[in-house]
Amino acid sequence: MPDTKPEMGVEQCEMVAKAFRDVQDRVEKTLARFERTSFRRDQWEYSGGGGGESWVLENGQVIEKGGVNFSDVRGRELPASATANRPQWKGLPFRATGVSVVVHPLNPHAPTSHMNIRFFSILEGKSVKAWWFGGGFDLTPIYGFEDDARFWHQAAKSLCDRYRAGLYEKFKETCDKYFYLPHRQEARGIGGIFFDDFAALGFEDCFRFAQEVAATYAKTYAEILNRRISLPYGERERSFQAYRRGRYAEFNLAYDRGTRFGLESGGRTESILMSLPPTAAWRYDWDPEAGSPEARLRWDFLSPRKWISDPS
Amino acid sequence: MPDTKPEMGVEQCEMVAKAFRDVQDRVEKTLARFERTSFRRDQWEYSGGGGGESWVLENGQVIEKGGVNFSDVRGRELPASATANRPQWKGLPFRATGVSVVVHPLNPHAPTSHMNIRFFSILEGKSVKAWWFGGGFDLTPIYGFEDDARFWHQAAKSLCDRYRAGLYEKFKETCDKYFYLPHRQEARGIGGIFFDDFAALGFEDCFRFAQEVAATYAKTYAEILNRRISLPYGERERSFQAYRRGRYAEFNLAYDRGTRFGLESGGRTESILMSLPPTAAWRYDWDPEAGSPEARLRWDFLSPRKWISDPS
Repeated sequence: MPDTKPEMGVEQCEMVAKAFRDVQDRVEKTLARFERTSFRRDQWEYSGGGGGESWVLENGQVIEKGGVNFSDVRGRELPASATANRPQWKGLPFRATGVSVVVHPLNPHAPTSHMNIRFFSILEGKSVKAWWFGGGFDLTPIYGFEDDARFWHQAAKSLCDRYRAGLYEKFKETCDKYFYLPHRQEARGIGGIFFDDFAALGFEDCFRFAQEVAATYAKTYAEILNRRISLPYGERERSFQAYRRGRYAEFNLAYDRGTRFGLESGGRTESILMSLPPTAAWRYDWDPEAGSPEARLRWDFLSPRKWISDPS
Repeated sequence: MPDTKPEMGVEQCEMVAKAFRDVQDRVEKTLARFERTSFRRDQWEYSGGGGGESWVLENGQVIEKGGVNFSDVRGRELPASATANRPQWKGLPFRATGVSVVVHPLNPHAPTSHMNIRFFSILEGKSVKAWWFGGGFDLTPIYGFEDDARFWHQAAKSLCDRYRAGLYEKFKETCDKYFYLPHRQEARGIGGIFFDDFAALGFEDCFRFAQEVAATYAKTYAEILNRRISLPYGERERSFQAYRRGRYAEFNLAYDRGTRFGLESGGRTESILMSLPPTAAWRYDWDPEAGSPEARLRWDFLSPRKWISDPS
């Protein structure tokens, strides 16, 4: 699929890296508007070449823990976890550029969110043997709001529809499949879109799409935060939030390919595990009382469902 | 190594299962002495055959979360995670019997502990084609006490020395290697002993050894609890405990073969993840102040070291 046309080379990689740095900046600005301080910035270098910047905020008014990470690393051997569907590139030199965002808000009524865009290229000297984009965004409510879920998915669909019919449906399904905890038989959240090995629209459009994924995420999530961060909460809600965050930690540590890729390829641990929640709790065999808002999350939100009805 | 002699059959499996049930009972009795209530008991069945009993205690005076689990399950295909060193048995019918104990005490001065004994047999009709024992115990302090670490390792060494010279040293090394977080470059705790694919002493001695592992664990851990559960603590210590428990969750979810075996083989999720701590916390790129007790844990306790000096 990524039949590399002669024009693809390291210049394109540089262009993507520059644009992704701008994405990091714009997403951080949108999120920092909720806080009195900006994100703390950490620069780091990668042993194989390249490096990144982790921008992190902790114990904010709205964001209990959040990170907006940029990374641009080179490696001599692409690990298997980098792409489940392109085993033929395993072991070849690569460059991976990405932006990764996770926000764990303080208020349990505000959902956790995650966004990622990434560009992989397989290198042979100065030429790019193959390339693809990956990424997406997904939402993990503690307390579910149908309005938010529909709003989130509508934003994803509007974006995708501008590129190709059926793209949203495909990427939503991939997202539902990816963010799933088999041992719990439940979804991590209400999903969104997820794509990998994406080159089908050609470089220009895929590149633009990735940037729009980030912009759509930031705008949509900011709106949802605005709706929820002033809702009152107490011990009960904070306690349920910690419990639900345990599931988030389970997914990221036991299943997430991005986390595994990072740790396996010797990435910077603190930047990779920035995604972990500020708190978590595990209770043995606990289920919320039937009919409670906590139970509604499980049964109304965490079984993959269609959030947008077909046009009639 | 496990050249199965003609006398090995399902009777031996039954004998092990019965003895391991008694082990569960004795360990629980030792731990329940610290509490006013006994452990809550849950029986469960395994889809492939067999089942188990999870005995769990939460929010106790001493034990914030603890479990003493017995399981005896059959399966049609041994998963790869069951034994790293015997790939030849992968895919064959098996029976796995084990006792697994994890205790997360409330007081941050009292260490978390883990003990496990397990018996695997590869079945062909009523005969046992191969068998081996596995298990061990290890200690994970939040605040380090050299006395406790030496006491713990001395108990392990005394036990092992009664069976074969060099066994402690070998099993300690295996333990240090196993309970290690590569992405953190630190040990999960101060170790103890760990063994797998253990058949070298013959069935009788291996079987007796496994039972003594459990007895030694219970006695030694109870003594350490007695030393530590009355020490005063406050917010600072509880907060550091939650942070350290985050590392425990990282290991169990991302690396532990036992957890993976359980989840991959469709085990009972709540019994497997009983090992997860009641609370956890993640802070970005945080290190305790140099010279503090929190920093001493990292540098004096979490780099594998020799806890018992050689006799001179």
